[in-house]
Amino acid sequence: MAAAAIDELKSQGGGFTVLRYTVPGIKDLPAACKILFDEEKCDLVLALGMVGRQPVDKDCALVADTGLQMVQVQAGKHVLGVMVHEDEAKDDAELAHLFDRRTREHAVNAYDLLFRPEALRKRAGTGQREGFADAGPVRVK
Amino acid sequence: MAAAAIDELKSQGGGFTVLRYTVPGIKDLPAACKILFDEEKCDLVLALGMVGRQPVDKDCALVADTGLQMVQVQAGKHVLGVMVHEDEAKDDAELAHLFDRRTREHAVNAYDLLFRPEALRKRAGTGQREGFADAGPVRVK
Amino acid sequence: MAAAAIDELKSQGGGFTVLRYTVPGIKDLPAACKILFDEEKCDLVLALGMVGRQPVDKDCALVADTGLQMVQVQAGKHVLGVMVHEDEAKDDAELAHLFDRRTREHAVNAYDLLFRPEALRKRAGTGQREGFADAGPVRVK
Amino acid sequence: MAAAAIDELKSQGGGFTVLRYTVPGIKDLPAACKILFDEEKCDLVLALGMVGRQPVDKDCALVADTGLQMVQVQAGKHVLGVMVHEDEAKDDAELAHLFDRRTREHAVNAYDLLFRPEALRKRAGTGQREGFADAGPVRVK
Amino acid sequence: MAAAAIDELKSQGGGFTVLRYTVPGIKDLPAACKILFDEEKCDLVLALGMVGRQPVDKDCALVADTGLQMVQVQAGKHVLGVMVHEDEAKDDAELAHLFDRRTREHAVNAYDLLFRPEALRKRAGTGQREGFADAGPVRVK
Repeated sequence: MAAAAIDELKSQGGGFTVLRYTVPGIKDLPAACKILFDEEKCDLVLALGMVGRQPVDKDCALVADTGLQMVQVQAGKHVLGVMVHEDEAKDDAELAHLFDRRTREHAVNAYDLLFRPEALRKRAGTGQREGFADAGPVRVK
Repeated sequence: MAAAAIDELKSQGGGFTVLRYTVPGIKDLPAACKILFDEEKCDLVLALGMVGRQPVDKDCALVADTGLQMVQVQAGKHVLGVMVHEDEAKDDAELAHLFDRRTREHAVNAYDLLFRPEALRKRAGTGQREGFADAGPVRVK
Repeated sequence: MAAAAIDELKSQGGGFTVLRYTVPGIKDLPAACKILFDEEKCDLVLALGMVGRQPVDKDCALVADTGLQMVQVQAGKHVLGVMVHEDEAKDDAELAHLFDRRTREHAVNAYDLLFRPEALRKRAGTGQREGFADAGPVRVK
Repeated sequence: MAAAAIDELKSQGGGFTVLRYTVPGIKDLPAACKILFDEEKCDLVLALGMVGRQPVDKDCALVADTGLQMVQVQAGKHVLGVMVHEDEAKDDAELAHLFDRRTREHAVNAYDLLFRPEALRKRAGTGQREGFADAGPVRVK
Repeated sequence: MAAAAIDELKSQGGGFTVLRYTVPGIKDLPAACKILFDEEKCDLVLALGMVGRQPVDKDCALVADTGLQMVQVQAGKHVLGVMVHEDEAKDDAELAHLFDRRTREHAVNAYDLLFRPEALRKRAGTGQREGFADAGPVRVK
């Protein structure tokens, strides 16, 4: 699915390079992100992974997600997690389709976070599948 | 809903500027807060987000909330999370109303934390919807 | 309930000053503790809060508690959480009574941690409501 | 139970001193460990605590355990948690017996971690109650 | 099972040394990893452990896993957790077989992460048991 991410990113515009880093499982993503931020000086990571059907897989996803929060807060950089749960689709074809679509949506989000923040703001609250969120910070003058 | 937050903040008084930072989903809020605290020197963040109806959405909210704790403890600054759960309302109108009201309540809280702490203390324990909490620190003389 | 805490602390002895810091909800307690430890140089925080009856409130309590662990481990200082769950009492009077009693018990614990550790040790294992815990550290000579 | 821990430790050999630090409840153990590691220069902590029968007590244990992970990872030192759940025993006598036995087992583990690592390795995988775990690190030459 | 890990690692190639560090239980693995990374300068840890059948054991595994995330994110190094749940097998022989197989698979992953990343990438998305995950970082030019 990394190919879909790269394809979509490139279709959005330029000004960046893409590195790939493959890990054995989703729980290995946070350490990979840390390495990519610190050693490879990446600005954002798209973390792609599949979550199995078993309860133990759901626990794995929760642990991986918690690790992704740790690495983001430590680095002050975004990791966009693209997790597809096996039980979201009825067969492999649907799963592949879902993974492709979600990866592309998040690739657009990644591009927007880095280069086009006003586009994200425009989409906020328009009922996109991933929901929306909006940080309204206050700075004392 | 950021508009409601800004409107309410301005109606409380002055002495601050507001920055907006939109993220794709609630799990992206903690990294955004970190950036706003460290790079933008914000003093407080109002983190607005919507939580879907699925169990996976509840897990997302828990992970996002844990990340918000991490960033607050690291920065020593408050993030007021304004999360509205889709299943709290029976339709979109009610949801919008709920979001507006909760956002405004938290905007007042944000203003009070920064400029009017005695107002917060006065409201504590009076049965406000968000409940109350009170930190009574002890300092050895 | 902060009044009960202060009253009980003062009845135990002197040698300390008390600061109050009110926050909108229990999830705001960890950031408050961080500020009290770092900026106000407090030695211990009594964190008082009420937990509602809904499942979402229980999640809030868990998140707040996790944040309190983060801040304690980072600061190397104790935060005594005094959380009262609404469903522990059948009405408001009982709730107020419970909150008062628990707050006073924890205020004594706070005093003992700072000034009278031998008193804590004496109570350990005597079936106090909060249970007991005992850290037996080993230092290589 | 700290007495059982100290007794067992001393029966294993010498070369160490023991400090005691009593806290009000199990959620106070992580902060105590941090203080013992940083201020008292302890090399290992045996954290003894009892977990009640209520669901809220189970949540407490989980939060305390998470805090113990934080402090261990921050300090790079071991905390051996000896938690006994009230519902593991049918009466107080059995509970006391269980606590004594488990405390002694962990005291031996503590001694071995510090002074006799080969003994731990020998026991690994032999079906001890606490299960076994083994870290096989790899260092690039 | 450490023997299986070492055997498999050596069969993959050279260029590394292996250290062993045995801990009493799975919750002791994160502290061990921290020591191995910081004091022993290890580049990766294979963390092997067995998870019992009781609910409390599942909680232990979750806590240990969370600790492993903390240590990985702090160190920026991978820990490959090889956890076998007792209830995954019907008897000890099957358990031993499962442990051996999983340990060897992860040993190959460990080798690949350090020396042969292109092999990991090739296996990604081919339906391996552990699932796959892929980090696609973006670096602004």
